[in-house]
Amino acid sequence: MNVNRERIMQRIDAFAGFNDNDDGGISRFSYGRADADARAWLMQICRELKLQVTVDPVGNIRACYEGVDSSLMPVLVGSHIDSVRNGGKYDGIVGVVGAMEVLTVMRENNCLPRRSVELIIFAEEEGSNFGTTMVGSKTLIGKLSADDLRHLHTEDKRTCLEILEKSGLDPGKMKDFVLKPGDIEAMLELHIEQGIVLEQEKKRLGVVQAIAGMTTMEVTVCGTSNHAGATPMYLRNDPMSAAAVLIEDIEDIAANHVLESTVATVGSISCRPNMPNVIPGEVTFTIDIRDIEQDAIEKTVAQITSCAEKISQERKVMIRFRTIGSSKPIRLSPRIMDTVKRAVSSCSDSWMVMNSGAVHDAAMMASITDVGMIFVPSVGGKSHNPEEYTDPSDIALGCQALLLAVTELCV
Amino acid sequence: MNVNRERIMQRIDAFAGFNDNDDGGISRFSYGRADADARAWLMQICRELKLQVTVDPVGNIRACYEGVDSSLMPVLVGSHIDSVRNGGKYDGIVGVVGAMEVLTVMRENNCLPRRSVELIIFAEEEGSNFGTTMVGSKTLIGKLSADDLRHLHTEDKRTCLEILEKSGLDPGKMKDFVLKPGDIEAMLELHIEQGIVLEQEKKRLGVVQAIAGMTTMEVTVCGTSNHAGATPMYLRNDPMSAAAVLIEDIEDIAANHVLESTVATVGSISCRPNMPNVIPGEVTFTIDIRDIEQDAIEKTVAQITSCAEKISQERKVMIRFRTIGSSKPIRLSPRIMDTVKRAVSSCSDSWMVMNSGAVHDAAMMASITDVGMIFVPSVGGKSHNPEEYTDPSDIALGCQALLLAVTELCV
Repeated sequence: MNVNRERIMQRIDAFAGFNDNDDGGISRFSYGRADADARAWLMQICRELKLQVTVDPVGNIRACYEGVDSSLMPVLVGSHIDSVRNGGKYDGIVGVVGAMEVLTVMRENNCLPRRSVELIIFAEEEGSNFGTTMVGSKTLIGKLSADDLRHLHTEDKRTCLEILEKSGLDPGKMKDFVLKPGDIEAMLELHIEQGIVLEQEKKRLGVVQAIAGMTTMEVTVCGTSNHAGATPMYLRNDPMSAAAVLIEDIEDIAANHVLESTVATVGSISCRPNMPNVIPGEVTFTIDIRDIEQDAIEKTVAQITSCAEKISQERKVMIRFRTIGSSKPIRLSPRIMDTVKRAVSSCSDSWMVMNSGAVHDAAMMASITDVGMIFVPSVGGKSHNPEEYTDPSDIALGCQALLLAVTELCV
Repeated sequence: MNVNRERIMQRIDAFAGFNDNDDGGISRFSYGRADADARAWLMQICRELKLQVTVDPVGNIRACYEGVDSSLMPVLVGSHIDSVRNGGKYDGIVGVVGAMEVLTVMRENNCLPRRSVELIIFAEEEGSNFGTTMVGSKTLIGKLSADDLRHLHTEDKRTCLEILEKSGLDPGKMKDFVLKPGDIEAMLELHIEQGIVLEQEKKRLGVVQAIAGMTTMEVTVCGTSNHAGATPMYLRNDPMSAAAVLIEDIEDIAANHVLESTVATVGSISCRPNMPNVIPGEVTFTIDIRDIEQDAIEKTVAQITSCAEKISQERKVMIRFRTIGSSKPIRLSPRIMDTVKRAVSSCSDSWMVMNSGAVHDAAMMASITDVGMIFVPSVGGKSHNPEEYTDPSDIALGCQALLLAVTELCV
C-alpha cells in the first residue's frame, strides 16, 4: 500500500484555504469561523470514507475505521487543525492529512484490520484562545474538568465555557468521553519538527523519543508611574527597565546556565498606561520555559526568580510570578518507538532518533496509552510563522511511514 | 484683590467629576465625552463672567475679558483640561482654574484693565489621542497645518480630521485663527511642577526660566518569529531580547552619559504576534527624550542609535527609528520672568527659579509671544498618575501670584 502525494498536498492546500487571516499567514483558532468550515469539510471526507464520526463536548473529533474484532482497543492517529495567530500551513495539518491519508489508503485497499483505527483531531492545541495549550487533549484525558474550563478565558474576557456553548458544545457532558488507561491500544502522531535538527543532520524522518516539558509563567513588574519629563532618572522606579534587565537575564540563563536543550521565550508583553510620555506603572510579560529534563525546567525557574529578587531589591520594584500552565517532559513508549523505527527504516535510510522541543497532544495522551511520534523536517527550523515549510516529498515519506506503523499496530 | 481658595478647590473637584474612567484615575481625552461636558461647564461659567467666548477650529477655547484700550494686544492666561489615560486631577486643571479665578476676581472687583485678558484652554495637550502632544497650541501658532492633521490618527486608525469633524469642528478654517508675533502681549501659565524639585528644595512656588525640549521616537526591532519550544537558543534572532538590551542601554545613557537634566523613557511597548509560545517577529516601543539643552537631546539620540547599531549587528536583528515628534528647549522671556518674580515674591518668600522637565503649551506660544510660567509643588513628584497631589494652600498661593502677574501685565 502506498500513500498518494498529490492527494496529500491537495488536502494541505485545502486546509490553508480555511483561514481567518487575510494578512499572509494562517489564523485558524479553534471555535472560530475558519475552524468550523475546516471541520465541516474534514467530517464530510470522513463520512465519504464510511468512518463513524463523533465530536466530543470540547470539540475533539474522532472518526472510526472499524476493525474486525470490536473487543480490541483501537489505535488512534491524528493531530490538530487549529493554528497560532499568523502561523503556517503545516503545523498540525501534516499530521491530520497524514492520518486522513492512512485511512483513505486503507479504505481504497479494502483493508480489514483486527483493531479499529481512529482518526483523532484535538481541539485548541495551540492555546490561541485561552493562553492554555492542548485544552482538547487535556480534557480528553481528564486533566482538565468542565469546571476548569469555566476559569479559562480569552483576552477580551469571554470564558471557554461561553465559547464552547456558542459552538453548540456542552462540556458538562465531557465525563462520558474521558479516556482512561486500557481504553486505547496506542496513539501515533505525524508532525513537522518545528526545529532545525533534522535539517542540520540532513535527515528526512525523526523518531521521537522524548517530548519537552514546559512551564509558562506570567511576570508582573510593578513600579511607580510618573511624568516622563519631570521625573529625574535617579528618582524613578521604572518597571520597564527592570523588565528589560530581567528579559535579558532570562535569555542568558536559558542559553548559558542550564542544559543545551533548555529554551526560554518572552513571547508577549504589555505595559500600563502604555503612553509614550508616561513612565509605566506596570509591565507584564510571559515566559515559556521548555526542556526534556524536568530538573532543568525547575533550575531555570529558580535562576529566573533569583535574578528577579535581585532586580526587585536593586530597583525598588515589585515582581510577581504566576504559573499559567505546565506539562512534564515525556519519554515515549519504547514498544511504539520500535514499531515506528521499523516503519521509517523500511521507507528510508535517512532517519534519526530525536527529542521534540515542542509539546504535542501526544504528550498528553502518553498518560493513558502508548504513544509514538514521527517528525518531518521544517525548512530553516521555521514554525509558528507564515514562512513555515516542509518539502512535499518529505511529507509524503512521513505519511508512508505513518501508514506502515499504523498497519503494524492494527493488523 | 485676593483669590478664593474654596472656590478654586471646588472648581478643581468639579473638573475631576468630568471623567471617562471609572477605575480610580482621570481619563479625559480631548474630543471625548468627559471633555465635552467639562468644556460646556467651563464655557457656561465664562458666559456668566460676561467673557466673550470663541472656540477655534481645533477646539482651543478663548474667553475674553475686555480691556479699556482695544488697540492693545491682549494678555493670555490658561492651560489645558485634557489628561493622560488614568492620570491625576491637577495636571492642566490647576492652571485652568487659576486663570478662571484671576478673571473671576477681576470681575468681582470691577477691574477695568487697559489690555484685554483672555482665558485660553489648549486642546489635546497630552497627545492622548494621536501620540503627538500639544496639537491645539501647535495648530494655533501655525506649526501644524490642517493638512498635518490629516496624517495624525488614533491607535485604532481614526484620523484627527475625522474626530474633529465629528466634534463639529472644521479645521479647514484654522488659518483665520492662527496667531503671529505681534498678536499677543504675553502669555502666563500656572502649572503643577510634575517633578520633585520644589518638594526637595522646600519651596512653594517656582519661576520657570527654561522648558525642556523633547524628541519622541518609535523604535521597531525586527527579528525572526519562530516556535518557542523547537528553536534552540543559539539559532534565534529574537527581537524581544534585543529590545530589552536596548531599553537597558537607553536608561543607562540618560542616567549616566549626558547631563544631569537628561531623561529618557520607554513608556509604551508591543510585540507581534504577542503569544506566549511564539518567539516574536517584531517588537515596537517608544522613547521620550527630554532636556533643557538641545545638544544633550541630540547626544542622547546619537548614543541610543549607536547602541542600536551594535545590537543589530551582534544579534542579527533590524532596528528602525522613526521620530514621532520633537520640540526644542525654550528659554522663557526675561521681561515676563521679572514680572513673575515680583508677583511671587510679594506673595511668599518661599520661591525659586527653576527649569521645567515637562513640555507645556507655553513652550509653543513662546515662538509668537513673551511667555511666563509659575509652578506649584507636586507631592512626591508624582504626576500623570492617579496619586498626583498638590496642597490646596500651594494652589491658592500659585493662583494669587498668577493674579498679581496678570494684573501687572494688563494694567
